[in-house]
Amino acid sequence: MRVLILGGDGFCGWPTALHLSARGHEVAIVDDGSRRAIDEELGVGSLTPIAPLDVRLSAWREVSGRAIPSFEFTVGQDFDALVALLKGFRPDAVVHFAEQRAAPYSMKSARHKRYTMAANVGATHDVLAAIVESGLDIHLAHLGTMGVYGYGSAGVAIPEGYLTVQVETAQGWAPREILYPAQPGSIYHLTKTQDALAFQFYARNDGLRITDLHQGIVWGAQTAETRADPRLINRFDYDGDYGTVLNRFLMQAAVGYPLTVHGSGGQTRAFINIQDTVRCVELALANPPARGERVKVMNQMTECWRVRELAQIVARLTGAQIACVPNPREEAEENDLDVDNGRLLALGLDPITLKDGLLLEIAEVARRYAHRADLSKIPSVSCWNAGRAAAATAGAALQAAE
Amino acid sequence: MRVLILGGDGFCGWPTALHLSARGHEVAIVDDGSRRAIDEELGVGSLTPIAPLDVRLSAWREVSGRAIPSFEFTVGQDFDALVALLKGFRPDAVVHFAEQRAAPYSMKSARHKRYTMAANVGATHDVLAAIVESGLDIHLAHLGTMGVYGYGSAGVAIPEGYLTVQVETAQGWAPREILYPAQPGSIYHLTKTQDALAFQFYARNDGLRITDLHQGIVWGAQTAETRADPRLINRFDYDGDYGTVLNRFLMQAAVGYPLTVHGSGGQTRAFINIQDTVRCVELALANPPARGERVKVMNQMTECWRVRELAQIVARLTGAQIACVPNPREEAEENDLDVDNGRLLALGLDPITLKDGLLLEIAEVARRYAHRADLSKIPSVSCWNAGRAAAATAGAALQAAE
Repeated sequence: MRVLILGGDGFCGWPTALHLSARGHEVAIVDDGSRRAIDEELGVGSLTPIAPLDVRLSAWREVSGRAIPSFEFTVGQDFDALVALLKGFRPDAVVHFAEQRAAPYSMKSARHKRYTMAANVGATHDVLAAIVESGLDIHLAHLGTMGVYGYGSAGVAIPEGYLTVQVETAQGWAPREILYPAQPGSIYHLTKTQDALAFQFYARNDGLRITDLHQGIVWGAQTAETRADPRLINRFDYDGDYGTVLNRFLMQAAVGYPLTVHGSGGQTRAFINIQDTVRCVELALANPPARGERVKVMNQMTECWRVRELAQIVARLTGAQIACVPNPREEAEENDLDVDNGRLLALGLDPITLKDGLLLEIAEVARRYAHRADLSKIPSVSCWNAGRAAAATAGAALQAAE
Repeated sequence: MRVLILGGDGFCGWPTALHLSARGHEVAIVDDGSRRAIDEELGVGSLTPIAPLDVRLSAWREVSGRAIPSFEFTVGQDFDALVALLKGFRPDAVVHFAEQRAAPYSMKSARHKRYTMAANVGATHDVLAAIVESGLDIHLAHLGTMGVYGYGSAGVAIPEGYLTVQVETAQGWAPREILYPAQPGSIYHLTKTQDALAFQFYARNDGLRITDLHQGIVWGAQTAETRADPRLINRFDYDGDYGTVLNRFLMQAAVGYPLTVHGSGGQTRAFINIQDTVRCVELALANPPARGERVKVMNQMTECWRVRELAQIVARLTGAQIACVPNPREEAEENDLDVDNGRLLALGLDPITLKDGLLLEIAEVARRYAHRADLSKIPSVSCWNAGRAAAATAGAALQAAE
């Protein structure tokens, strides 16, 4: 299969590109380096020393004997380049990771909100319009987020994208299947819910074949392929914007920084290991929807945990302290989460779940590169609104006074 | 009340600005002239001779003694100008018309799809982010469209924005009120459904007070204020992209062009007269939602008609011929539409409905300016997808052969 990976230099895109290449697919990458540019902007970097993309690709060629061509342009801006690449490379599938992926980054300021909105909605729409323009029957697999469902539907097991409801009609109550009512919790999440509407439209209007993978929080850093050579090592983000909760806790433990739990830590989140991410994408590509079928939504997650439970596990394993801090996010302090992930399991996913051994291995990666960490970048300082900002300031003042 | 009208030079924005000014509100306009630039691009113009904005505003000052300051920048691009204007003018309300408003234009080509997506989603998000940035408690009234509901929910009376459904929970079926599941029928409509998600997010995250007016197809051209001086005359669009169905039929009758009905004409649409549009906006501004309340959605329409019924009415009144042409749109040939518009009626709207006298008055406006029409611009040539384009071509070939 020929597969074009948009955002193929990123945390999920890079290991996906390698995995698909290793499995014999003909892979090409588009990336504009925006994720690395954001590192510069924030004055942080991956905890792991990631090689430049060209070095990564040369190393992969040495290690595997397989070439992955790469193209540098911005998906969402250079539309003509995208159409030309689709027509030239003629991919069977496009995997779309080319979006700004951090909720806290999307909430830092008006500028970050506007950037995330334009970059994400623009990129997704360009991909859809470019596929139509190419005239090719390309399967689009998009990385979405479990966050589109929101966390407010207590008591409803989250289905895979669509919800069967009863609506009142002239003939009484009747069942309807609807796109799950979105409750985005940040600008980042908002863009993904807007993407979902665009997918729905293009699938119906132009018959595009689209899979939307609603992914949980990814943990872990390495996959079989990224471990094959130091130059292939994957990103490991630990900063307050891009570091995701479990990886951050493991890194914080490694550097002796108390595990920062937001609020009560009662938020329940869905998780998936990075190795499972790349396998899920492969499974999705092998099982595209038919032409004319509606968008295929799969919940790409393997287990749910409360944030404080994760902190407790990491504290037990490593002896780290736990520090509760005011939550910068506008969200419920506690929520339950019950998710249906039957589709990927039925396709053959054999989940990697949180096990002590695996967690310690990640902590070990973090320890190995602890000297690269800037501890001042660990706190999450992006506040969701004026109220949360005031609470964070008050919390910091209280801490200083103690 | 101080009211800022975004897109205040357009078909709805201009009469709204005048109406609110006439009613004693302090009004200012932002417009970048993009609607007039699109006229240039398409090689068409308003059937009525509209004056440049500065001439319009001078005329209004002469006629009414009231000044309406105007600001020329692009909402969705020049964010700093918007924030500065909000902080300087300190409006109580912003009325947001600053979006590309024609479904056919949004479907003309990949370029037009991309333009509409970026312009509309970008403008709406900038308005929201700018209100947050201003720190002011500004009520935002947005002009949405009935089209966000789609026309697929046969048997369900369309409620005002939200739908009460029964969902299956661990404790059995339970009621939930959800944002009406969107079924956008074009890129234009898609952007409005994406706007709705942005409104939902900003209302919840930042407590913004937002009214979304889901408007039907506007007919008529003049209001009490635009009739007051020839220099105040409103736009009258008749071209295949911007001309809306009833006004187009009246204009076609006036110039002796057969009324072009798409397909069977069985599409049922919601309608509202332009005079009611401006009154609805005034009612919406006088009745904002409370801070912390969810988005207030009102269906801004007064009656429903099938397209072929309108053609028959106009044919009866004027003796015009009816010509059925292949439908360039991807949509159902026939649909029912049952809409709840109780909220604006309860606030005091006294609807202007289709009456022969009023229709003849519009036909008279069209006849007066018929010499300005370019009949070659009447056909709707924007096709929704490859299949509709092929059908249109086949239809034209058949016609040529006959």
